Amino acid sequence: MTAFSGLMTPACLIDRPRLIANAGKMAGIANARGVTLRPHVKTLKSLQAAKYYAPPGSPICVSTLAEASYFAGAGYNDILYAVCLTPNKYQQVSALLQQKVKLTVLVDSKSAVEALCHAAFDSGSPLSVALEVDTDGHRAGLCPDSDELTGLAKDITNANHLQFAGVVAHAGASYSCFTTSEHASMAEQETNRVMHAVKRLRDAGITCNMVSVGSTPTALYAPHQSGITELRAGVYITYDCVMAGLGICQTDDIAMSVLTTVMGVQQDKNQILIDAGWMALSRDKGTTGHKQDCGYGLVCSEQGALLEGWYVVATNQEHGIVRHIDGLNVDAAGFHFGQRLRILPIHACATAAQFSQYAVTDDNSEITEYWARINGW
Amino acid sequence: MTAFSGLMTPACLIDRPRLIANAGKMAGIANARGVTLRPHVKTLKSLQAAKYYAPPGSPICVSTLAEASYFAGAGYNDILYAVCLTPNKYQQVSALLQQKVKLTVLVDSKSAVEALCHAAFDSGSPLSVALEVDTDGHRAGLCPDSDELTGLAKDITNANHLQFAGVVAHAGASYSCFTTSEHASMAEQETNRVMHAVKRLRDAGITCNMVSVGSTPTALYAPHQSGITELRAGVYITYDCVMAGLGICQTDDIAMSVLTTVMGVQQDKNQILIDAGWMALSRDKGTTGHKQDCGYGLVCSEQGALLEGWYVVATNQEHGIVRHIDGLNVDAAGFHFGQRLRILPIHACATAAQFSQYAVTDDNSEITEYWARINGW
Repeated sequence: MTAFSGLMTPACLIDRPRLIANAGKMAGIANARGVTLRPHVKTLKSLQAAKYYAPPGSPICVSTLAEASYFAGAGYNDILYAVCLTPNKYQQVSALLQQKVKLTVLVDSKSAVEALCHAAFDSGSPLSVALEVDTDGHRAGLCPDSDELTGLAKDITNANHLQFAGVVAHAGASYSCFTTSEHASMAEQETNRVMHAVKRLRDAGITCNMVSVGSTPTALYAPHQSGITELRAGVYITYDCVMAGLGICQTDDIAMSVLTTVMGVQQDKNQILIDAGWMALSRDKGTTGHKQDCGYGLVCSEQGALLEGWYVVATNQEHGIVRHIDGLNVDAAGFHFGQRLRILPIHACATAAQFSQYAVTDDNSEITEYWARINGW
Repeated sequence: MTAFSGLMTPACLIDRPRLIANAGKMAGIANARGVTLRPHVKTLKSLQAAKYYAPPGSPICVSTLAEASYFAGAGYNDILYAVCLTPNKYQQVSALLQQKVKLTVLVDSKSAVEALCHAAFDSGSPLSVALEVDTDGHRAGLCPDSDELTGLAKDITNANHLQFAGVVAHAGASYSCFTTSEHASMAEQETNRVMHAVKRLRDAGITCNMVSVGSTPTALYAPHQSGITELRAGVYITYDCVMAGLGICQTDDIAMSVLTTVMGVQQDKNQILIDAGWMALSRDKGTTGHKQDCGYGLVCSEQGALLEGWYVVATNQEHGIVRHIDGLNVDAAGFHFGQRLRILPIHACATAAQFSQYAVTDDNSEITEYWARINGW
């Protein structure tokens, strides 16, 4: 056990009781709906963290093949790589298949399917391939109404070395929804459109064993609709200021923070300098368009209590600048050199990526253990 | 030798001939002025890269004590840690002193000096301490005219276990200067104000052996003024879109790029998707206020030729979205699935931090070697 005072700063803290509560809530939602939860491990990328929300044996979703390999090595054998596969990654895919992992890859274009059909994977069993379906015009995916959807599904089905898995949708547009009714409406749209694709495929004689939808906001508000086989969600495990700004969680649910030390109290500028710059917090400013712009993060006491109105207004590489939203005085607020504070991340996936390990606390005063994470591709 | 086609993407490429040219230019400037160049190694954090611009034996500047330890382990013994030292880092400072490294630390407040004066460092020789001087109101440092400056210098001088080194200034405001005359004027201001501090200290009977100024823009345009003992600069070694936007370099001087693969060509949205999202490029959008907003990076061909007007307009974790500034057609431009492209970074320090190694090329087609980097604190 290490007291916070003995830690090098900046350090990335995980509040384990909150993480466990967040995991339980989402698992309960999936369970109540009778769908499988496929957690996206891209936020924490940590085996030790995953045991609380996706223990070995669980289906998982990954954002890189490096994650796939890391989790496969620990016994995970049902992995969805949820980024369109390009040919320069076929070798890594072969390596995973040789480990007897059930890897499902994603494609959304004729070119990508053609490349897969002409590829040779060094594996005894066929590669599972899903089609990405676009339900909100957000980024990628095939239109549920397109001829391409059924045509490509047939091409995959007809390739001996491929196995058609089904359809995957990601309602990324939900990150621009700010009310419960907007989230519910976006979730309904995601479900309806992906089910429309499933129906069209079924009419063409093609079965979707995987009908996967998700994003943390839509997973929380998804309607009870039959046909969906699994929910995907990732950032729910820690949440962050973006999710709080969308009304998806409270700041008290946020299970990640960056422990930092005050380097200077500048009365003349009415601001304090902390040793968490963008290298620790990341450059993510995802709440810029929100009702409350949290800058680079919200400030909490060492014990994790939110210091209302104090936020990181600017960052340099190793410096963060903290001010109050209404200009409260830094001296009156009692800030002092050497003081420890904690910063709630704007975007947990981005902040976590700046670290190679997490310091885990159960009581907001001591570190109980460290969890490793991987980065890279 | 690995061809680009054999690389996992995204990958961080270093163009070695450009890096060597950038190193040579800055070394030539310092040499012509008769001042020592103290390269800031925070951009690349790589021993293998540093041999081209700060070989062992050179004085260096670091942004973290992890960097100090990494470079000290390779024989570097004159290291300036250019971030205000907080008490929770004293133990790491002691460890470095025990390695017989000449470590200079920075402070800029009475609280920080008091803490140092009361500290006990487990070392036979005194700890070298410099005062940060504020020359532009940018971030930190003591006012050159303040009584605090001379008072704190005396306190340091009087402490047996400390040695007063001198003064350090960083003209961070130069990152808001867009013309040669503005850069030269900012450099002159930095020099004049830091020399005013030196004169006031000398009048108080205190000698500054270290009079250190720098930032890449002001180092390039610094006036020939006696009294300055060293120039610090970091990002000049690779440059980036921010530096090009400030007129400090040409895009052809940028020695870092992210190799990426096209995941999809979306005619309907007239955009392409690449496998370099913010996880590879970083969330830095430092050219937002510039004449040309480069988004998350400028697009080049696989061979490194700038594709005029094409840039990364948006990013998700593992997706980048590329469009043309004037809406040129993606098909007409010949983009295709599986194609390799290169992205020039907005801010090299931030992009480099997303990687654990660099793939080094001499001919823009093959990788000659890999350089490791460290992250963390």
